[in-house]
Amino acid sequence: MASSPKCLGKECSAPGPVPNGQIRLYSMRFCPFAQRTRLVLTAKGVKHDIININLVSKPDWFLKKNPFGTVPVLETSSGQVIYESPITCEYLDEVYPEKKLLPSDPFERAQQKMLLELYSKVIPYFYKISMGKKRGEDVSTAEAEFTEKLLQLNEALANKKTKYFGGDSITMIDYLIWPWFERAEMMGVKHCLAKTPELRKWIELMFEDPVVKATMFNTDVHKVFFDSYMDGKPNYDYGL
Amino acid sequence: MASSPKCLGKECSAPGPVPNGQIRLYSMRFCPFAQRTRLVLTAKGVKHDIININLVSKPDWFLKKNPFGTVPVLETSSGQVIYESPITCEYLDEVYPEKKLLPSDPFERAQQKMLLELYSKVIPYFYKISMGKKRGEDVSTAEAEFTEKLLQLNEALANKKTKYFGGDSITMIDYLIWPWFERAEMMGVKHCLAKTPELRKWIELMFEDPVVKATMFNTDVHKVFFDSYMDGKPNYDYGL
Repeated sequence: MASSPKCLGKECSAPGPVPNGQIRLYSMRFCPFAQRTRLVLTAKGVKHDIININLVSKPDWFLKKNPFGTVPVLETSSGQVIYESPITCEYLDEVYPEKKLLPSDPFERAQQKMLLELYSKVIPYFYKISMGKKRGEDVSTAEAEFTEKLLQLNEALANKKTKYFGGDSITMIDYLIWPWFERAEMMGVKHCLAKTPELRKWIELMFEDPVVKATMFNTDVHKVFFDSYMDGKPNYDYGL
Repeated sequence: MASSPKCLGKECSAPGPVPNGQIRLYSMRFCPFAQRTRLVLTAKGVKHDIININLVSKPDWFLKKNPFGTVPVLETSSGQVIYESPITCEYLDEVYPEKKLLPSDPFERAQQKMLLELYSKVIPYFYKISMGKKRGEDVSTAEAEFTEKLLQLNEALANKKTKYFGGDSITMIDYLIWPWFERAEMMGVKHCLAKTPELRKWIELMFEDPVVKATMFNTDVHKVFFDSYMDGKPNYDYGL
């Protein structure tokens, strides 16, 4: 696994060029979107280096690479830049043919994209509920809506009758969905999974995956970061 | 071109199965998202039939096909269902190899997807401005933001130094961007293009494309539909 160094902020100079024969990931150690790309890099065994970015004090050279200012961003040794997590993941799967994560069948690929679209409407609830709770707000409506959306996700998995969302082995969609469920306990949303047995079983299986193990943090570490984030002083380098 | 029949509403029974060897598009004649798929079907010469849906009174059988309740939706003769406009377009390009619209190079494909992501933040402004104006609201802030975003789009095209967004011939990204610019005059946003000469030239070229000509409506027709939509009684079958 690539080492994950301390983050670079506004005052830091730009890193050197990407060495030939490898790819660079601009990341933030606790960012679930960047974790998607770390999962894919790790699963496929792609040689890469990591530059972590201070997201509250972004270097100008980083904003030039990605005008949205978000991570993940990939950069190749020829200076090509790719951002937006699903785009980075699909790019990696296309360029590095070893261990294909997307199915070869066009309809199965379309199914994964439709499921990702559904899931993109689930993600905001992880934050609505955990942040709302932390601020002492009533989150019962958000919890009810979240539970409803998780039921849809569970139904997709139950209808498929397989262990994972794309079949009986892990594929791209599992890694794209995963990072928020790794944080479910820390975010205080696990009780919303009460009626989704297939999804709970999937979470258990995912925690056993060596690629997940190689990219994850445990609940205590996630909690320290999340608390520092909520206090307005995100501790990007916690534990380094 | 496939004929485009009167729309089916809640009280209408479901259409028969999709004939072997063709594909079905669930559409709405004036929907810009569905037009993306019509452009791709037409450009690639894919044999298809069209079922138009009454979007204010959707049949239950349609909601079963696409839980989001939106068009476009594709259905194959084996009953596979694909929705979300970019997913339908990519699916068609993968399944029907004639006249490939997406580039074969993974980085160029990623570039088209990043540009689409940028453009997805432009689309809401077409509505904010046109609907705001119709309601007599002050839209100057929206116009300023829209102008700024169009400058970004223009820059992407100018940097590329080609006639179209993907090169000197039309590719997928042009068709995905197009439908809202066809409606720019009707929506009263053309003045926001004052500082985007490359984009204006692109619009001129797109209006000349036979595929665009085959799927488009003129400004007067778009206006009748838009006015009926704003009055809360969308005239989906206008002109049939």
